[in-house]
Amino acid sequence: MKLIFSTLAMLALVVGGTTSAKGQDPLPSWNDGPAKHAILAFVKEVTDKSDLKYVAPEDRITTFDQDGTLWVEQPMYTQVMYCLERVPALVKKKPELQSLEPFKTVLSGDREAMAKLSMKNLEKILAATLTGMSVDEFSAEVTKWLTTAKHLRFDRLYTELTYQPMQEVLQYLRANGFKTYIVTGGGQDFVRVYSEQTYGIPPEQVVGTAGGTKYGYDKDGKPFLTKEPKLLLNDNNAGKPEGIHLMIGHRPHAAFGNSTGDRQMLEYTKAGDGSRLAMLVLHDDAKREYAYGPAEGLPNTKVGTFTQEFYDEAKKQGWTVISMKNDWKRIFAF
Amino acid sequence: MKLIFSTLAMLALVVGGTTSAKGQDPLPSWNDGPAKHAILAFVKEVTDKSDLKYVAPEDRITTFDQDGTLWVEQPMYTQVMYCLERVPALVKKKPELQSLEPFKTVLSGDREAMAKLSMKNLEKILAATLTGMSVDEFSAEVTKWLTTAKHLRFDRLYTELTYQPMQEVLQYLRANGFKTYIVTGGGQDFVRVYSEQTYGIPPEQVVGTAGGTKYGYDKDGKPFLTKEPKLLLNDNNAGKPEGIHLMIGHRPHAAFGNSTGDRQMLEYTKAGDGSRLAMLVLHDDAKREYAYGPAEGLPNTKVGTFTQEFYDEAKKQGWTVISMKNDWKRIFAF
Repeated sequence: MKLIFSTLAMLALVVGGTTSAKGQDPLPSWNDGPAKHAILAFVKEVTDKSDLKYVAPEDRITTFDQDGTLWVEQPMYTQVMYCLERVPALVKKKPELQSLEPFKTVLSGDREAMAKLSMKNLEKILAATLTGMSVDEFSAEVTKWLTTAKHLRFDRLYTELTYQPMQEVLQYLRANGFKTYIVTGGGQDFVRVYSEQTYGIPPEQVVGTAGGTKYGYDKDGKPFLTKEPKLLLNDNNAGKPEGIHLMIGHRPHAAFGNSTGDRQMLEYTKAGDGSRLAMLVLHDDAKREYAYGPAEGLPNTKVGTFTQEFYDEAKKQGWTVISMKNDWKRIFAF
Repeated sequence: MKLIFSTLAMLALVVGGTTSAKGQDPLPSWNDGPAKHAILAFVKEVTDKSDLKYVAPEDRITTFDQDGTLWVEQPMYTQVMYCLERVPALVKKKPELQSLEPFKTVLSGDREAMAKLSMKNLEKILAATLTGMSVDEFSAEVTKWLTTAKHLRFDRLYTELTYQPMQEVLQYLRANGFKTYIVTGGGQDFVRVYSEQTYGIPPEQVVGTAGGTKYGYDKDGKPFLTKEPKLLLNDNNAGKPEGIHLMIGHRPHAAFGNSTGDRQMLEYTKAGDGSRLAMLVLHDDAKREYAYGPAEGLPNTKVGTFTQEFYDEAKKQGWTVISMKNDWKRIFAF
C-alpha cells in the first residue's frame, strides 16, 4: 500500500508535476490565507528545477513536533495519560511505591490532585513506567492501550485526534518527494508504536526523547533489548536540533511546532540557506479544540506553552503562525 | 538522479518483477556458490507475495557493517588514518599536547611506533581530533581530506576501495524495495560525509558510534552545533542492536558483518521470525586484498578480528561465511 503510494507520488514527480498540478487542492481543510499560501509557495519553489531555490529530493527533509502540532495535547499529553494509567500495574510489581509520592496521588484517583502534579513528579512517573521492560513488551502494551483508551472530552481514541489540516500537509509534502519526520519531546519508543498507522511515518522517521536499552538473552538464549532509565536524548528545546543531527544528519527545509520547546528547531531550520519554512500552530480555538498561550491574551498553560515573547519572535523571524481558528476549515477528520 | 533510480526500482517492483527478472545477473561479481545463492534465495522469498516468508516493503530493513564489510579496513581503519593526520593541526591549536603521549609518537612520524599504539591510545587520538569543532567544519574537513588522502598499498582514494560485490548487494537489495543501512563502529558523522556518494546510502541511514553535540550561537546570533566529547552510542558489539533500536526502530531482515564486533547484530537479526539473512565476510585473500582472522589459520590482527570460535558459531547458527577468495570474482571496481 505504502509502496504503491510512494510510486505514484514519484511518478507524478517524474512527469514533471506536483499533485496540485492536476487542479485538485492539496490542502482542502485550509482556508485561503497566509499560512496556506506559505506552504504552497515553499513547495513550489523548492521542487521547481528552474528555481534558484530548488532542493534535490535527497535533501527534502521536514520535521514536525507531535503534541499540539499533529494531534491534541490538552488537557495532558497522551503519553502522560498512558503512564498514569500504568501506575496501578507498576505498583502491583513494586508494592514499595504504594506509599510514596507521586505514586500515592495517582493511586488515589483524585483527578484534581493529579492535575496539580508538577512536571518533575510527572517525569518520575514517566521514568518508572517507561523503563525496566523489554522493548517488545512495551510496544505490545502501548498498542493494546491505544485501542481502548479514550480522550475524555472528545470520547475518541487518541489516534483519532490528529489534525486533518496537518495530515494533509504531511501527505502533500511526501507527494512532492519530501521525507516527513516527527521530532517530539515525547518518548521515541512510544510514538513509534503508532506513527506509521496514524501519520504514515515509519518508526525510523520518529526522533523523540530516547533512553538507552540493554542487550541481553532470555533463558532460551534468545536475545532481547530492555528499556533502561538512562537518558540519551532529551528531545526538547536545544535537544531538538541536537536530535535532528544525531538521528537524521541533515538540516530540515521545513519545521512545524506549536510551543516554546520548538524554538531551537525552527531557528536551526531557518538558519540554513535557500528556502526554509518555519510554522507554528497557535491554539486559539476553544470551541473546536482548545485555546491556550499565553500569547495574544490566550489562557496560560503548562502543557504546550506559547509565550507572547515567542509569538513576537516568530513574527520578527518570519516564522508563520497558524491560527487554528482562522486557518483551519476543520480540525479533525471525523 | 537518486529519485529517478528509486522510481525505476519501484516501477520494476510494481510490474511484478525484480531486476533479475530481466535475465540479467544482479550479482555479476559473485562466483556461483552458497553465498551468492543465499542472497538470491533470501530476496526471492521475502519479496514473493505468495511466499509465507513475504515481508512488506516498510519492514525490509538491512544493515551493513562498514570497515572490512563494505570497504578495506587494513592495515588500519580509514577514520584512524584521518585522525592521525589531523594531529599536527590539533597540536598547533593546543601546543600542550606536543609533549604528551600518544600525540608525541604520532608527531614523531615513526610509522613502526605508530602501528604499535594501543586501541586505548588510538581512542584518545580519536576523541581529541573528532570533537570541539562545529559539525559543519568537521564535515568540510573530512570532505577535503577524502579527495586527496590515499591508501598506501593500493595508491587509491579510500572511497575507491569499496568492495564491488558488496556494492552489487546494496543495489540489488534497494532495487527490491529494501532500505540499506550502514551500522558501523566508526564515527557516525565521519561516515555520513561520504556514504551517499560512495554507497548511495543517505546520512539518515548511517548508524555509527556517536557523540553528543551542543547547540549554540555564533557572534552574529546564527545557531550551530559543536561536537562534544560525550559518548552517546558505542556502536560495537551489543551497541549494534542497541543502536539499531535507537536509530531505526525495526529489527533488520538481513545483516552483514566481518568481525566479532558484529556478533550481536547478527544474533539479533536472526532472532526475528520469518526469513533472516546473516552473512560474514572472511578476509582470506592476501593476494587481492588481505588475509586475517585468526579463524581458519589466517594471521591474527587487531583490526577486524574474526576468531575461530566466532567462525564455528557462524556455522552452527546458519550464518553464511563469504570467502573473499572463493566467492568474489573481483574485489574492486577498478
